[in-house]
Amino acid sequence: MLLPEPIQDLINAFSRLPGIGPKTASRLTFYLLRAQDELSLDLAEALKNIKSGTSYCQTCYNITTSGRVECEICASPERDKSLVCVVEEPLHVLALERTGSYPGVYHVLHGALSPIEGIGPEDLRIRELVERVRSGSVKELILATNPSMEGDYTAAYLHQQLLPYGVRLTRLARGLPVGGDMEYADQSTLLRALFGRQEMS
Amino acid sequence: MLLPEPIQDLINAFSRLPGIGPKTASRLTFYLLRAQDELSLDLAEALKNIKSGTSYCQTCYNITTSGRVECEICASPERDKSLVCVVEEPLHVLALERTGSYPGVYHVLHGALSPIEGIGPEDLRIRELVERVRSGSVKELILATNPSMEGDYTAAYLHQQLLPYGVRLTRLARGLPVGGDMEYADQSTLLRALFGRQEMS
Repeated sequence: MLLPEPIQDLINAFSRLPGIGPKTASRLTFYLLRAQDELSLDLAEALKNIKSGTSYCQTCYNITTSGRVECEICASPERDKSLVCVVEEPLHVLALERTGSYPGVYHVLHGALSPIEGIGPEDLRIRELVERVRSGSVKELILATNPSMEGDYTAAYLHQQLLPYGVRLTRLARGLPVGGDMEYADQSTLLRALFGRQEMS
Repeated sequence: MLLPEPIQDLINAFSRLPGIGPKTASRLTFYLLRAQDELSLDLAEALKNIKSGTSYCQTCYNITTSGRVECEICASPERDKSLVCVVEEPLHVLALERTGSYPGVYHVLHGALSPIEGIGPEDLRIRELVERVRSGSVKELILATNPSMEGDYTAAYLHQQLLPYGVRLTRLARGLPVGGDMEYADQSTLLRALFGRQEMS
């Protein structure tokens, strides 16, 4: 095509990101071309630092600043270490933290079991979770994997693996989303909401 | 917040791009964190090269590989130099090239006149366009600025500036988009389509 190579290179690099197609990639590229140099250089710098500047918390495997052994949440004396919420991704920790009312700590699996995609227990931080439970102080595990097929399967697998340790195992409630409309709720969500109905107090 | 600084930096850098909000920015960031190092490093490299590896064609002001005086289109002996299509952005050159049937050359203004945003004639490549017309060989100018308020205003301004040179001035046709549905056409498009109706042959 008639595009100069550096431009085509940047369009290609943007296109490899999820949710960014060729049209968005070229829009971003031409925007950066017209914008101040600083904008693209800042982004380039931040990209280079993302891997070197971060590492995993050795307790919960959430992402933390490199050099730290434990993340801020695990290191905080105010957090209840006996309550552990198991999530698939670091982003899910953020989502739960935003509620501002979870008193416990986390365990990040970094994915969910998926026989179709060939993701088995050894690809996730499951061995580390079992070790954490075995070592003693955990009383309750909230299996907060996604309400999807893979998430449910992962929770079922963890349930089976952790049952012998006598720890309380729970799962987040299913039901109608707050602010949603009954009319648009899918059948399985409605079914779950029906079965999980609660007494009005 | 509880995010390590390098992650927050990258989220911020992504958020400064057009059409990328905080949610998309953090999705991209966490995707890159899990992806191979190569992906973020390639993107960083491409970003650094985008400005240093490109320059403007000294004839049409389209973007070209740095070091070249003229872009490939202007340098091509097969292009009709007497037909010049005036566009707002390099992306619009690409759009017209994709039709594969434009025989002429281009002139890129790098924006449109906008009194509201304080963009005047001196901010665009208008002086260079007038010079190009004055120097002689141009016979027709297609004023292909956007069919928007700013684009129309820019075309009207150019029309007024270039009239003295006796060059043919045209504008792209307005009407119903191909593959569109009458039902969804807005009033002004429909009105334009009506006034611009053509004999069936």
